[in-house]
Amino acid sequence: MSTPIGPTDSTQVPRFAGPATYARLPRIDQVDRADIAVIGVPFDSGVSYRPGARFGPSAVREAGRLLRPYHPGLDLSPFSVAQVVDGGDIAVNPFSIGDAVETIDRETSALMEPGTRLVTVGGDHTVALPLLRSLHRRHGPIALLHFDAHLDTWDTYFGEPYTHGTPFRRAAEEGLLDTEALCHVGVRGPLYGKRDLEEDRRFGFGVVTAADVMRRGVDEIAAALRDRIGDRPVYVSVDIDVLDPAYAPGTGTPEAGGLSSRELLELLRGLTSLRLVGADVVEVAPAYDHAQITATAAAHVVYDLVGLLALQHRSSS
Amino acid sequence: MSTPIGPTDSTQVPRFAGPATYARLPRIDQVDRADIAVIGVPFDSGVSYRPGARFGPSAVREAGRLLRPYHPGLDLSPFSVAQVVDGGDIAVNPFSIGDAVETIDRETSALMEPGTRLVTVGGDHTVALPLLRSLHRRHGPIALLHFDAHLDTWDTYFGEPYTHGTPFRRAAEEGLLDTEALCHVGVRGPLYGKRDLEEDRRFGFGVVTAADVMRRGVDEIAAALRDRIGDRPVYVSVDIDVLDPAYAPGTGTPEAGGLSSRELLELLRGLTSLRLVGADVVEVAPAYDHAQITATAAAHVVYDLVGLLALQHRSSS
Amino acid sequence: MSTPIGPTDSTQVPRFAGPATYARLPRIDQVDRADIAVIGVPFDSGVSYRPGARFGPSAVREAGRLLRPYHPGLDLSPFSVAQVVDGGDIAVNPFSIGDAVETIDRETSALMEPGTRLVTVGGDHTVALPLLRSLHRRHGPIALLHFDAHLDTWDTYFGEPYTHGTPFRRAAEEGLLDTEALCHVGVRGPLYGKRDLEEDRRFGFGVVTAADVMRRGVDEIAAALRDRIGDRPVYVSVDIDVLDPAYAPGTGTPEAGGLSSRELLELLRGLTSLRLVGADVVEVAPAYDHAQITATAAAHVVYDLVGLLALQHRSSS
Amino acid sequence: MSTPIGPTDSTQVPRFAGPATYARLPRIDQVDRADIAVIGVPFDSGVSYRPGARFGPSAVREAGRLLRPYHPGLDLSPFSVAQVVDGGDIAVNPFSIGDAVETIDRETSALMEPGTRLVTVGGDHTVALPLLRSLHRRHGPIALLHFDAHLDTWDTYFGEPYTHGTPFRRAAEEGLLDTEALCHVGVRGPLYGKRDLEEDRRFGFGVVTAADVMRRGVDEIAAALRDRIGDRPVYVSVDIDVLDPAYAPGTGTPEAGGLSSRELLELLRGLTSLRLVGADVVEVAPAYDHAQITATAAAHVVYDLVGLLALQHRSSS
Amino acid sequence: MSTPIGPTDSTQVPRFAGPATYARLPRIDQVDRADIAVIGVPFDSGVSYRPGARFGPSAVREAGRLLRPYHPGLDLSPFSVAQVVDGGDIAVNPFSIGDAVETIDRETSALMEPGTRLVTVGGDHTVALPLLRSLHRRHGPIALLHFDAHLDTWDTYFGEPYTHGTPFRRAAEEGLLDTEALCHVGVRGPLYGKRDLEEDRRFGFGVVTAADVMRRGVDEIAAALRDRIGDRPVYVSVDIDVLDPAYAPGTGTPEAGGLSSRELLELLRGLTSLRLVGADVVEVAPAYDHAQITATAAAHVVYDLVGLLALQHRSSS
Amino acid sequence: MSTPIGPTDSTQVPRFAGPATYARLPRIDQVDRADIAVIGVPFDSGVSYRPGARFGPSAVREAGRLLRPYHPGLDLSPFSVAQVVDGGDIAVNPFSIGDAVETIDRETSALMEPGTRLVTVGGDHTVALPLLRSLHRRHGPIALLHFDAHLDTWDTYFGEPYTHGTPFRRAAEEGLLDTEALCHVGVRGPLYGKRDLEEDRRFGFGVVTAADVMRRGVDEIAAALRDRIGDRPVYVSVDIDVLDPAYAPGTGTPEAGGLSSRELLELLRGLTSLRLVGADVVEVAPAYDHAQITATAAAHVVYDLVGLLALQHRSSS
Repeated sequence: MSTPIGPTDSTQVPRFAGPATYARLPRIDQVDRADIAVIGVPFDSGVSYRPGARFGPSAVREAGRLLRPYHPGLDLSPFSVAQVVDGGDIAVNPFSIGDAVETIDRETSALMEPGTRLVTVGGDHTVALPLLRSLHRRHGPIALLHFDAHLDTWDTYFGEPYTHGTPFRRAAEEGLLDTEALCHVGVRGPLYGKRDLEEDRRFGFGVVTAADVMRRGVDEIAAALRDRIGDRPVYVSVDIDVLDPAYAPGTGTPEAGGLSSRELLELLRGLTSLRLVGADVVEVAPAYDHAQITATAAAHVVYDLVGLLALQHRSSS
Repeated sequence: MSTPIGPTDSTQVPRFAGPATYARLPRIDQVDRADIAVIGVPFDSGVSYRPGARFGPSAVREAGRLLRPYHPGLDLSPFSVAQVVDGGDIAVNPFSIGDAVETIDRETSALMEPGTRLVTVGGDHTVALPLLRSLHRRHGPIALLHFDAHLDTWDTYFGEPYTHGTPFRRAAEEGLLDTEALCHVGVRGPLYGKRDLEEDRRFGFGVVTAADVMRRGVDEIAAALRDRIGDRPVYVSVDIDVLDPAYAPGTGTPEAGGLSSRELLELLRGLTSLRLVGADVVEVAPAYDHAQITATAAAHVVYDLVGLLALQHRSSS
Repeated sequence: MSTPIGPTDSTQVPRFAGPATYARLPRIDQVDRADIAVIGVPFDSGVSYRPGARFGPSAVREAGRLLRPYHPGLDLSPFSVAQVVDGGDIAVNPFSIGDAVETIDRETSALMEPGTRLVTVGGDHTVALPLLRSLHRRHGPIALLHFDAHLDTWDTYFGEPYTHGTPFRRAAEEGLLDTEALCHVGVRGPLYGKRDLEEDRRFGFGVVTAADVMRRGVDEIAAALRDRIGDRPVYVSVDIDVLDPAYAPGTGTPEAGGLSSRELLELLRGLTSLRLVGADVVEVAPAYDHAQITATAAAHVVYDLVGLLALQHRSSS
Repeated sequence: MSTPIGPTDSTQVPRFAGPATYARLPRIDQVDRADIAVIGVPFDSGVSYRPGARFGPSAVREAGRLLRPYHPGLDLSPFSVAQVVDGGDIAVNPFSIGDAVETIDRETSALMEPGTRLVTVGGDHTVALPLLRSLHRRHGPIALLHFDAHLDTWDTYFGEPYTHGTPFRRAAEEGLLDTEALCHVGVRGPLYGKRDLEEDRRFGFGVVTAADVMRRGVDEIAAALRDRIGDRPVYVSVDIDVLDPAYAPGTGTPEAGGLSSRELLELLRGLTSLRLVGADVVEVAPAYDHAQITATAAAHVVYDLVGLLALQHRSSS
Repeated sequence: MSTPIGPTDSTQVPRFAGPATYARLPRIDQVDRADIAVIGVPFDSGVSYRPGARFGPSAVREAGRLLRPYHPGLDLSPFSVAQVVDGGDIAVNPFSIGDAVETIDRETSALMEPGTRLVTVGGDHTVALPLLRSLHRRHGPIALLHFDAHLDTWDTYFGEPYTHGTPFRRAAEEGLLDTEALCHVGVRGPLYGKRDLEEDRRFGFGVVTAADVMRRGVDEIAAALRDRIGDRPVYVSVDIDVLDPAYAPGTGTPEAGGLSSRELLELLRGLTSLRLVGADVVEVAPAYDHAQITATAAAHVVYDLVGLLALQHRSSS
Repeated sequence: MSTPIGPTDSTQVPRFAGPATYARLPRIDQVDRADIAVIGVPFDSGVSYRPGARFGPSAVREAGRLLRPYHPGLDLSPFSVAQVVDGGDIAVNPFSIGDAVETIDRETSALMEPGTRLVTVGGDHTVALPLLRSLHRRHGPIALLHFDAHLDTWDTYFGEPYTHGTPFRRAAEEGLLDTEALCHVGVRGPLYGKRDLEEDRRFGFGVVTAADVMRRGVDEIAAALRDRIGDRPVYVSVDIDVLDPAYAPGTGTPEAGGLSSRELLELLRGLTSLRLVGADVVEVAPAYDHAQITATAAAHVVYDLVGLLALQHRSSS
């Protein structure tokens, strides 16, 4: 296999110069194959409160300029063991959620066709549904680790089935998920009613609250997650609002009492044994960000997800 | 007729205290009639770029706390000569533009039923279409003065006919407008092509550019607008992006080279002879505002529009 | 008893629409009784550094739009077990602290008259004194849990006895407090001198520092607080600057090294056994906030305080 | 007379280094005499809406780091023809307006004692009253040029006679003003009632609105002001909210439709013939400023006022 | 000649999606020739006050997403009559001004080699010097229209000859400029001394102040500029601080009293007869920008400069 | 020894009034000796990404206005046991790193001459090198505790040996450091390669990651640091980016997953036994700060470092 083309060399081109591909990686059209692609889905028409996640991909790419190629936590140079690329944005219709969901499904399926693993940068959480559809066609029922302040298993808003609060209910209803291996992490804040929790449990979800992470510590939680998921194909979906608003002001439905970015990153680093088949980082709304606090956190989360995929790629190749 | 109930007395209740109804006016349910109502339509699903105008009504109301009851430019106490109220928000479906347009039409029609004149605070410019539909049913073809950086007579985006760039094309196609008396004011910035202007002209629109306002001065422009409109029933639609981004950063599709807030207010004050039947101020996107610059400008524009309606009400009663 | 009227239904009216009462609850004039009222006291003339808490109530109400009606941590729907309302703002004189303190005392006493419990949103910490006076008349000496970076038992500034740094000294001097059951939580940062601590201790206060919370954990601290307070009538006063500036930039006298919002909320959730008679959340200064980080934290703290009061209401009714 | 000591040399010490005295001028204690002193009065307890002007002096000094020593518009090096200094802040009681007003009167009188002319940086507009008292004792009745969006001749708020909306009514009542030579410039926005204008006129004030400045141009307005004032001793009071919120977002009671900073500066440059005895620039509220837009404008206005005083000093010495 | 490849179609790909090349134009490597290239020079080590213009190119490109392909003011589709491209960034050494100046000279010379005209986005004003060197080698002495608050003909700071305050003195000394045809426009604010003006005049510069633009109007000024320049090869250098801080907060050395963006754009539109050989827009410092006010103005200025070059290209081809 | 002159009395002069010396301490020229001086080095030309730390000293001084004179954590009034002063800024050449490094070395040596201990506020991390040179001349090889997200032992960027990423490599190469007693604390984020860690280790550095601090707790880490350092003369260098971007948005190269301000302050409080000979707090970039979050944290860190030096001073005098 050809040696992967890495990011622009920061000792020759300052990190603030040149195009803002994610981590200054090559574009997908500059390489002959892509083992892992970071793609953007600039779509936020499924948002119920503060909109703006349509600018998320571009903000995460800008923040990703600072990333360097070696991950000391994983002792890994992800861009050396796999060809990682910036796969660009999927252009979707902002005026029709249904149309958007179909486009995302179709285009991500095409991207995955040659075996490329995707880390998707949203956009709002609606985008997880078409990604799960794509993945389900390739892998069958998928385990799900869902980092979020919210359950996202609500039913409909104003009669609309596809929104950023409903992707995992739809996914469960459509049989896309492996009901033995589903877990929310970081949940907190008020709900509509006790029924929200009951229905969520009926779909098979476990819940690790943000307070649980504080009380039990990241290592114990990570171990429990590994146990629950085992070696199933798993999708990791990270709503950036799993972080406290202090760590992620730039998001649409902030809830106090969240995780720190250190906890989130260390949790992810505890998941090296998982068989990750795809991942997303969603709900970065730059209009509410300040000094790239949120976008930087998101860029690091993407980096760790890419790292997990690269680890797998290394051991499988 | 009963004496109008005015705003909260600021010498008794500080302007930063109490509910933020527009200009601290009574709610519509606190009075027995409403001659003029300021209403909000928190809807921005028709936006093509920076979203967030859904928070416009609430921002304009907050900024309106500072308004006082006497308009020296018009030598008028608008809240004394007419019962002016805050008519609250129209709750619309954020996930379906079509549904939203219908709701706005139905609810504003009901509000106008007893003869109430509306000044609508958007929300994005999509909301002008259902308002024109409502007004057309009461008044027949309507003259239109449209203050905006953009023409808003584009056709469709992604196949969607109802967006914030298309309301006046739809209105023209539906025969809602009086084609003898249509004018854009403040237009500037690049277009898709020369055809944009040609088609716009075919619908009957005149164009006063932002540069024209600088070169010819507000008094000459106002005179020309009065001439063009005459005594037809006229709707005044103000997209806050008619102002330069310096005066209105908090909006979705900013264009350099715009009007100052002083020019816009003085233009409106030159329109006292018009037979205004309704008005809107749209596209205030608070996430991009700073220190209420935009919301304050919008609150003042609403105040002048209310003033024009109150003048008419006084002379007609 | 009549079934409580709950908040506006978010599946029918988007959370960004309609008036910003706290948590979209009914106004006090819309119900026939109020078991618990959230009120605002927009007053900041007692501030010694960055002013602006006069806009706190309005910011907390805006941030409260996102709250939902079920509290999973307490397994409670607070708005179902008690009639909770938005009691509006108390209009006070911004130019006379003495006058303001009297007005707050008089008006909150009137509000409490029918047995309504109050959660007061400041405004600066000065407002706690008249609230303690009101409560003392109803309940006698009051235990106090005071979450704050500061002791607030200083004496006078520039000869002024009533300021945001002095309410609890005044309260102690006036005999309003139960000197067996007083505790500051979250204290940190430099003081004027060792005497500050000595005098504070002499008034009967215990001190749990912000570092203690980190070292001992929220559960141990909550247990100690429950022990100290027992079943005395207790007032919980939360200066939002108990949070680190990362979690609460929008405040007047920020001190590094503070609590996280998760710690604060979990501490409050450890106090379900207390006999809470009133509470406040003060010192939210929105001009220094960003993306509602502070206001969201404060809205959640209010929600938990309402939750504690609702729990009590349920068990007592 | 000794050669004036000028500002720090920016070719030796970068302008971002060293203490932020105004324009990097010497402190008053570093020179043996002061012909002109720029002083701060960090006081905002007279504010009726957005507070924070207490931080105005420090913000204007920071913005003043960029100023250079030669004024091309006046062809003058103000710091060479007169000893100009930073006179520091007057420390006033934030909790008692009456006390503050007395302190300002006393301290500014002492500063003026050796013949020093003052340019005062507020703080809120309340500070103009004690300055006029001081000046009246030295000069008798004073002409007044008042640049402001507001009249500031209101009577009382909540019974308080001394606030930022009332200094010129008090001054008129106390006989401090030369009633033949009073003018507001830049007035706009709604008032409480027609009576506001009538009473203002009765005190002797002329009114030049913000719209007048646009219609008639700065040269014609400046000529009219020179005519009105003649060679009377005159005080120039500049409320920074005379500028449009685009040019001065950092202020407490913004009104749309204001002057540009270019207009204001050119108006001042048209006043070289006046016999200026003192001046202020007030209502800079940095918490609402962005990127020093407002503070920079204010620093330039102070510079022009110092320039006018230096011109006079040169011709009189 | 092949038909130019235009920007991404905004009706198919939302303007917030896809890579942020300037105006969504093709990259230089995607076309077979480039008539006009917009390039970035992310360099700000020559800055004397607020740094950050290194992020200018990326901010202007982001703001350029909103531009459309037809310029109504010039009745021109610039991207149809010439192949316009995004030429990417020139990577320069941030730690050595001398090295950077050489790199810019070398790389821009190479870019111009095939006859490509450049519009350079800074970066700080230092970058104008190497551009003038490149152009001088191709065209001989160059006329210069310089829009700026400052003269930029200062000598050295701290002994450094190449800084953002000195490029045009260096250019004059090196004989790069046509001394018959040099003009600053928009100058204002204090200088170091009268000598600054005298020396500047000696280099041959005319000065149009910001106040002149207000007094004489853009059309008269543009005519005078056309007269002065005639048909000489001319370079137009736009320091964004020629705009008032209201219109361009995001810059390093703001001066009150500047131009509006409308004035600047209309001035440029008055220069269609000039023989433009190159242009720059510099000193956009995004860390001080808000809601893209500055970047939007800069993106429009670049668009007009591209328009002028495209006009020339059309008439010459 | 004369009694130290303390800070301005905040009960007489409000903390927002008067010059912003650090903690309102006397200037160095106002006292006859200085045991400890806080100095500023406004220099950021060694920055590789977001610049602006040149404004750090002024921001930290402004934030330091809120500090009070007694440190309860150390039970110490640092300004009473030692004469602590604000030593002003060292004016350095922004256009030559080499020149700047020499100036800092020379000027800090002069300041230390009478035995004064320095706490330096940067500026970027480049400034640590000349400080270590100064200290090495007085104390020989220095132990180093380095709080930072980064190693800062990189070699060169663009051939430049002195940058903010390289000071400790240079220091090691020059033999300034005691290779037995070097430790980074708070390290995290991606590196260029595994070699970065290997080279760093070869210089003698230990590494405590940010995750280690979370897992092991501050007390255990502090104990390990005390062990490692023993009674060697030690320099403590705090890059504010050791804090998470939530706690320190105002910095140049933010990395997610950092320390909280409480952890950092408690770590420092665990170092009372160390023989501190100097310290710095660097990389505060105010243009990216919000509401003084970062500057407040830095001001507190400086306060604790002063406290450590004062403790030593007390025991040694």
